[in-house]
Amino acid sequence: MARTKGFDPEQVLGRAMELFWRQGYAATSISDLVAHLGIARASLYATFGDKHDLYLAALDRYIRNPEPDPVQVLAGPGPVLPALRFLLDTYAAAPSPGRPPGCMVVHAAVECPADDVAVRGRLDLNWGSMEVALTSALLRARAQGEIRADAEPASLARFLLVLMQGMQVVNGPGQGAVRAADAARYALEGLR
Amino acid sequence: MARTKGFDPEQVLGRAMELFWRQGYAATSISDLVAHLGIARASLYATFGDKHDLYLAALDRYIRNPEPDPVQVLAGPGPVLPALRFLLDTYAAAPSPGRPPGCMVVHAAVECPADDVAVRGRLDLNWGSMEVALTSALLRARAQGEIRADAEPASLARFLLVLMQGMQVVNGPGQGAVRAADAARYALEGLR
Repeated sequence: MARTKGFDPEQVLGRAMELFWRQGYAATSISDLVAHLGIARASLYATFGDKHDLYLAALDRYIRNPEPDPVQVLAGPGPVLPALRFLLDTYAAAPSPGRPPGCMVVHAAVECPADDVAVRGRLDLNWGSMEVALTSALLRARAQGEIRADAEPASLARFLLVLMQGMQVVNGPGQGAVRAADAARYALEGLR
Repeated sequence: MARTKGFDPEQVLGRAMELFWRQGYAATSISDLVAHLGIARASLYATFGDKHDLYLAALDRYIRNPEPDPVQVLAGPGPVLPALRFLLDTYAAAPSPGRPPGCMVVHAAVECPADDVAVRGRLDLNWGSMEVALTSALLRARAQGEIRADAEPASLARFLLVLMQGMQVVNGPGQGAVRAADAARYALEGLR
């Protein structure tokens, strides 16, 4: 497929993801995409459909390849709290050099109209699977005596999920990183 | 001033704020603004400067008129926790009809480049003043015996601030409102 088209669709999709991640959906025009992807407009439409289709494919790719992958980090075996701490620290840390700042899912959530069911469905699914991973990790943590015996893993998972999204909003220059780190520390202390 | 120009700059600024709030900065073009504000392009430039200047003025206006105003809600006198609960419930609730969904500050934080010091400065100032209001309310709550005696108001304030931003990210159709409400409930229970 790549040879007949003269480009590798997976590579091009990766570049599209990078651009949408950095700029968001609305601010990225088809002309931006053509320039950034280095393929002809006609090839873009023929391979990926319209801008919204390409965005959905890019969002899917982002969601399938989280770094780090919360589901994997929390999967265990072993103690849960260090894994959770690692995850929260990653959300509080400055973005890696060379990667766009922020989170593509958070950006999608903030700019996506309520009636864009295709994007909303992906957000719900993404947060849902993170919630499930957190819940089962917290159930294990409770069984292992790492968190209070009266903790409610499902509520706790939702709370942590919401906090992690907030950390990605405030994180940035100025007081951002300090605020995010403080929030993580407080949340972890409250679990014991 | 309004008469010689044929329009009321404050009213026009309110309409610009509404549009930026709904669409974000990048997705709003000067042509969008001209169409939405109902004034000539030349008047727009003469009165407000370029798009970035107008955005800053709109953001300032948004920040000056929060609804509800956390500083006022938390100012007391009286018990603090019911005021805090009211505030968190507002962040968890669906947006009022007729108002754009979401929070203009959160949208600004997510889409604003790290080197846009004018916007970053406003975000820091806005969150800083909310943090101060939360800290002094929590100091009062501790003195009044409403929260644990060993609570640290400054850390707690940062934690709540971050959580509130996360609530505004996940809030929306689907499981969003449930997640936001659950996070609020858990956070409030943890304070006692």
